[in-house]
Amino acid sequence: MRILIVGGVAGGASAAARSRRLNENAEIVMFERGPVVSFSNCCLPYHISGVVEKEETLILMNPKKFKAWFNIDARVNSNVISVNSEEKSIRVENTLTGEITTEQYDALVVSPGAGAITPPFNGLDKINYYNLKTVADVSKIVSFATEKRPKHMTVIGGGFIGLEAAENLRERGIDVTIVEGSDQIIPFVDREISYFGQAELVKHGIEVITNNLVESFDTRKVILKSGKQIETDGVILAIGVKPSTDFLKGSGVELSDRGYIKVSERYETTAKDIYAAGDAILVKNQLTGQDFPLAMAGPANKQGRLIADSIHGRKILNKGYIGSGVVKLFGINIASTGLSEKMLKNTEIDYEVVYAAPPGIVGIMPGAHLVYSKLLFEKGTGKILGGQFATKGSPDKRADVVATAIKAGLTVEDLADLELCYAPSFGTGKDVVNKMGYIGSNLNEGTFEQVAFTEVHDLLQAGEQVIDVREEIEYQAGHIEGAVNIPMSSIRQRLDELDMTRTVYVHCRTGERSYNMAMMLGANGFNVKNIAGSYVFVKAYEDMMQYNNPLRKNILIGDCNACASELEKRK
Amino acid sequence: MRILIVGGVAGGASAAARSRRLNENAEIVMFERGPVVSFSNCCLPYHISGVVEKEETLILMNPKKFKAWFNIDARVNSNVISVNSEEKSIRVENTLTGEITTEQYDALVVSPGAGAITPPFNGLDKINYYNLKTVADVSKIVSFATEKRPKHMTVIGGGFIGLEAAENLRERGIDVTIVEGSDQIIPFVDREISYFGQAELVKHGIEVITNNLVESFDTRKVILKSGKQIETDGVILAIGVKPSTDFLKGSGVELSDRGYIKVSERYETTAKDIYAAGDAILVKNQLTGQDFPLAMAGPANKQGRLIADSIHGRKILNKGYIGSGVVKLFGINIASTGLSEKMLKNTEIDYEVVYAAPPGIVGIMPGAHLVYSKLLFEKGTGKILGGQFATKGSPDKRADVVATAIKAGLTVEDLADLELCYAPSFGTGKDVVNKMGYIGSNLNEGTFEQVAFTEVHDLLQAGEQVIDVREEIEYQAGHIEGAVNIPMSSIRQRLDELDMTRTVYVHCRTGERSYNMAMMLGANGFNVKNIAGSYVFVKAYEDMMQYNNPLRKNILIGDCNACASELEKRK
Repeated sequence: MRILIVGGVAGGASAAARSRRLNENAEIVMFERGPVVSFSNCCLPYHISGVVEKEETLILMNPKKFKAWFNIDARVNSNVISVNSEEKSIRVENTLTGEITTEQYDALVVSPGAGAITPPFNGLDKINYYNLKTVADVSKIVSFATEKRPKHMTVIGGGFIGLEAAENLRERGIDVTIVEGSDQIIPFVDREISYFGQAELVKHGIEVITNNLVESFDTRKVILKSGKQIETDGVILAIGVKPSTDFLKGSGVELSDRGYIKVSERYETTAKDIYAAGDAILVKNQLTGQDFPLAMAGPANKQGRLIADSIHGRKILNKGYIGSGVVKLFGINIASTGLSEKMLKNTEIDYEVVYAAPPGIVGIMPGAHLVYSKLLFEKGTGKILGGQFATKGSPDKRADVVATAIKAGLTVEDLADLELCYAPSFGTGKDVVNKMGYIGSNLNEGTFEQVAFTEVHDLLQAGEQVIDVREEIEYQAGHIEGAVNIPMSSIRQRLDELDMTRTVYVHCRTGERSYNMAMMLGANGFNVKNIAGSYVFVKAYEDMMQYNNPLRKNILIGDCNACASELEKRK
Repeated sequence: MRILIVGGVAGGASAAARSRRLNENAEIVMFERGPVVSFSNCCLPYHISGVVEKEETLILMNPKKFKAWFNIDARVNSNVISVNSEEKSIRVENTLTGEITTEQYDALVVSPGAGAITPPFNGLDKINYYNLKTVADVSKIVSFATEKRPKHMTVIGGGFIGLEAAENLRERGIDVTIVEGSDQIIPFVDREISYFGQAELVKHGIEVITNNLVESFDTRKVILKSGKQIETDGVILAIGVKPSTDFLKGSGVELSDRGYIKVSERYETTAKDIYAAGDAILVKNQLTGQDFPLAMAGPANKQGRLIADSIHGRKILNKGYIGSGVVKLFGINIASTGLSEKMLKNTEIDYEVVYAAPPGIVGIMPGAHLVYSKLLFEKGTGKILGGQFATKGSPDKRADVVATAIKAGLTVEDLADLELCYAPSFGTGKDVVNKMGYIGSNLNEGTFEQVAFTEVHDLLQAGEQVIDVREEIEYQAGHIEGAVNIPMSSIRQRLDELDMTRTVYVHCRTGERSYNMAMMLGANGFNVKNIAGSYVFVKAYEDMMQYNNPLRKNILIGDCNACASELEKRK
């Protein structure tokens, strides 16, 4: 059996290694268009700052090792230019010599990945610009930083790669501006959770410009559609990716409009004996049933392995994908899993939101920090749909638990019931996830009602009664403008101060005390809603407003109406 | 409705608060025999070292706050001495005045906890000894340490409290010996995982004596049954606990032989309208169906809350318990969930063990450490039964994921399929848990065979062929005495060096490369077994032997045959 593999990084390398384990006698040839196989894409940004000091450590395997260890023929600088699924052959161009050869296969695995998008901006030739997708890319950035000593660089794009590039440039002492076209950075979480990351970037001296698209470049200059100009020494383009699937045109492998490969549950393409994995394929969302691209190393590795199983007739477990991710931005960590609220808004799913901000470890222990948390679940069934966590502590462990819960189809009630590890240095008696489960269960059973913290300013503007039940000393130290303080310790004696004819909106610091008071007020005949997220979320939101613009409705710098309509068109 | 609650810490306080939320009009009275309510038991040890600096911060709530916030009447120094379930009353002794009163209830919640065992050792009066269960206990220890400046203290008992006491005494600069009766400390994990913690304690200057029981005490002296004597200035007794349920005798509340309270799924005792929670009850093990006590803060909190739901006729989710825990010992963290192998040996369950030691985060990132991992699953079904993790990194997040998987009834195949958060600072493309899932799936499907690393010395002694497939340079830097080096990079060309008539046992550093070679050798007709846990586990095991005793069979100091038989008798 002759197995050919297109692409020698995550998906391709995994398919090759697992194929060898399952089949000692197969001939396995892996073609990589770049000069190296099996490098750590995800660590590339960390070489900019020197956190990963040596470039060569980014490369995990080499052709010699593939041969010696796995008897796999890994060929670099080998660009597969076409596939003939009738004749079961591929054409490969040696990118150094230009020579083209034809190779026959019994099974073909394509894991070509996705390349960085570089739109044809005017003036691109007048600036130093870089992508950040390969070892060669990062090598160029490091050389530029070392030799030219740039004072300022601009990162276009606020996704994973852009953010990590920005952090690592800043760690090197370079001033950085991030330009993002949509209304938020960190696209895998909702906007109000992204603020925690944005605030941390701003705190570390990074300028973050959202709602702004690049118009053109000029000498040492980025010109935005809003008219704003940024003086800069260099640019990193991290706008997005495009699947590298041009070579599949005419092969019988069906592609989506955007060029992604369609696969079956067994990762078969529409052409016989051709399988596909990684950033270039569409996977099925476990929760919505919709196809989507998922550019993540973990899933790519898994798919490669499962393709080897598929080729060798083994059973496959493919429940679909939910997407989990985490990013470190200086001192804050942000993790997410499953569907975000923005994604849910585009579905028919009737969902409910839980906000909470409990401490990640026991409050009196050193290193205790709040975990700003958002959980999404289906109304009625209570089924978990997604979770987002931002904290100086460990958001990843909470997101991992929620990810496991989603895969298993658990509900908010199940989350409350989980037995998670607790000792004072690691968590609290009721973990963040348990608490989200408790709140979610109560909401789902109609035990109390809530309103999101994002609505509090509108409520106040409309003259609604917003009651802060924290103690007086806390209120005096800082409060939401317009909220009235009736402390929990005296509210039972002061019920006559509340207007029973209107809804009472209550909050405290993190929402726990005010939830108790919402229950009490409800029992006393009031129409009451707890303000989900409470003061700590509102405070973070208000802080974020200050970093940017005093006008609440325009909370992010340089809103650009032209950009918004342009983005709308692109959808 | 009048709800009385016996015990004002985790379970009792939770039952009280939730009852108030569900019922604004109930009269709720909480009786606590000690002088404080609602303190953080789990943080007590950290006050010894000063990590938790101020004693008062250990106390989370006080009677005044309970009244003001929740309208709950919390009475301290109030010892409930008997319960009359016919008349629905309890008798309460004021421990300051000796006055006894009778109180009527509609519902009674008992959450009395468990007290430290202090056996009637000879010579106990000749030493300074302390328990560590209450704020008063830790206060005494701190006073002793401050005023008497002890040079050495002895901790009797190697469970959670003993270990944390030992660590915090050592952090204060006091020399410490831990004496443990059984053959291992850290009882919630298996012995070979406990070594990682034991090694860390020894590295930090703590003497660990296992397999040894205390015979008696003398002036500044602990005398062990093995004859060994320890010079010491003070003793902390952390031997174990006994449920504080004497007051329930004759009440109609059924107790087990050891005095634990039997409860229904709704936490009802056998007496009408009496409910029980916390360290004094028996809960059902989700995996074995057996009843067991679970002295953990999280479950106690949950039970208190569910009792309030139970009293108020709400539905209850009680799938049973699995037990999850974590402990920090200086630089190493050890977490566990579900059943350990020792527990499984006492069941009928046919289980399989996975050992692995992958890095917790990407190897080239700073702070990368191996996660020494053990997973237990049911043969055939692949159902997850338990997981144990020891690492300088984050074992808790892996145990939490496994705990969630166990609650949901997931299998090893599901673990492989999980989408966990990955970025280079937080994990690896295939997380530790995914890898355990892959190995487990392969074992369960019979893809390869293995033998535990604990057997490798016996195999070598029996003259079996043990092949180390690491590269020559790795082998030269350290290897298992007697293992033969045939590197992975040349083994395909050197198959004739292996004896095909006998089993080939292969290992590498962490078991991943040797698994590849096991597959290759199997395909080439060899009978082959991978050594699970591989060199890193064997190395840790050998190191542990060195810390203690050169005789392999007696790997822990001062084995005491008399102790072993005594412990056997007690079972």
